[in-house]
Amino acid sequence: MPRVMLTVAYDGTNYNGFAYQPSAVTIEGRINEALTDLTGCETCVSGASRTDAGVHALGNLAVFDTDSRIPPDKFAPALNSRLPSDIRIVSSCSVADDFHPRKRASVKTYEYRIRNSKTELPTDRLYTSFCSFPLDEKKMEEAGAFLVGEHNFTSFCNVESQALSHVRRIYSLSCKREGEYVTIIVRGGGFLYNMVRIIAGTLMMVGRGKIAPEDVKGILEASDRSKAGPTAPPQGLFLIGYEFPGEDVIK
Amino acid sequence: MPRVMLTVAYDGTNYNGFAYQPSAVTIEGRINEALTDLTGCETCVSGASRTDAGVHALGNLAVFDTDSRIPPDKFAPALNSRLPSDIRIVSSCSVADDFHPRKRASVKTYEYRIRNSKTELPTDRLYTSFCSFPLDEKKMEEAGAFLVGEHNFTSFCNVESQALSHVRRIYSLSCKREGEYVTIIVRGGGFLYNMVRIIAGTLMMVGRGKIAPEDVKGILEASDRSKAGPTAPPQGLFLIGYEFPGEDVIK
Repeated sequence: MPRVMLTVAYDGTNYNGFAYQPSAVTIEGRINEALTDLTGCETCVSGASRTDAGVHALGNLAVFDTDSRIPPDKFAPALNSRLPSDIRIVSSCSVADDFHPRKRASVKTYEYRIRNSKTELPTDRLYTSFCSFPLDEKKMEEAGAFLVGEHNFTSFCNVESQALSHVRRIYSLSCKREGEYVTIIVRGGGFLYNMVRIIAGTLMMVGRGKIAPEDVKGILEASDRSKAGPTAPPQGLFLIGYEFPGEDVIK
Repeated sequence: MPRVMLTVAYDGTNYNGFAYQPSAVTIEGRINEALTDLTGCETCVSGASRTDAGVHALGNLAVFDTDSRIPPDKFAPALNSRLPSDIRIVSSCSVADDFHPRKRASVKTYEYRIRNSKTELPTDRLYTSFCSFPLDEKKMEEAGAFLVGEHNFTSFCNVESQALSHVRRIYSLSCKREGEYVTIIVRGGGFLYNMVRIIAGTLMMVGRGKIAPEDVKGILEASDRSKAGPTAPPQGLFLIGYEFPGEDVIK
């Protein structure tokens, strides 16, 4: 059956994460409902990143197989008219019948956004994490440099992770400040359960001066979750998007 | 009785505007409840700007009189612990017993934020207006220049306005682009009912090329609401704050 890929943006505030759960409201669940309604035939997507409850995305991916005669690029507008406003299909395209974003070499970009100010702003509460202590974003970036490369990220992984290996590769990690906002941008080949949020929580401790940048090397080498900082709250995290280097994905 | 002034930030999404209404959920109503609970004595604020339903603020103002022995600057944290997370008291201070922001010469700054892109983003939907047609922000600013100064703004005022005079002064109006976002920044001595949203709706028509920048002069002179563009949606509008030129407000 022909395969279609969706690029999906969502506000994760009101969802129990991306991945389908029979008894909870999830983004995947909502997309499956819209697809089934549109095609008149029970259709389920398979998603790329299983983002946590409250985490947002600008470009998560999902694929599904369909015999529908709807042109692949028309799924986006047709699904959007059936989806709530906090989920948008940014685009839809045809991909090879055996293509799955989880099974290909990809670069995923995440951003962790922090409001760093004395005062909280109601209009930022859903899309940033708040930190009232001054953060030194240069020290945060210095600390982040120890995480770049291929490492065992056990220290930066939820202990309930069921991943067989905790080795992952981070391609780049930067921290930039714009006024009262600090953003951590991390690009990697793959991320473990809560990994970006634990990295963010640890770098925030560095930014506050509670952990020295060079201590992050030891935290990483300890392979012990208890050595790293707290898991930063989900609302600051955005899955920005996927790249498939050297590959022409759209059929 | 001593008078206290609050600087109030809010996400207007879930409120029927700022001003108290007996049978609707409003920001002023919520603050009154929190104040009454805190002081143990029925206390009502008097607000500066009566923002519309769905409009946001970073710095609206409200004053109230109280015999409470709570130090003026402590009202902010004490009220925040009694308010929902979409309303925050940014600061509180003592002002002269007869001070009222509406009765003083002030400069109010509003921003109207537009996502100008082919695709909507769920995480922008509550805090920007969406426009899929390319906007020329330079033409918008050129058009806005005709509105700067003292004018009769009847063309840019909701016909249900009960204001005795439609003469207002705009000090500056600028339009800036950052990537896929266009922001209109307008500073003025006062604004009529829906005035900033009608200015934004008109400038967006200019930005799309539907109205020539110089036509805005004629629209203004016509003193006819039907000549201006549509009222832009509320979620793009932010009341940024108040200034009281040449005045020391904090007592």
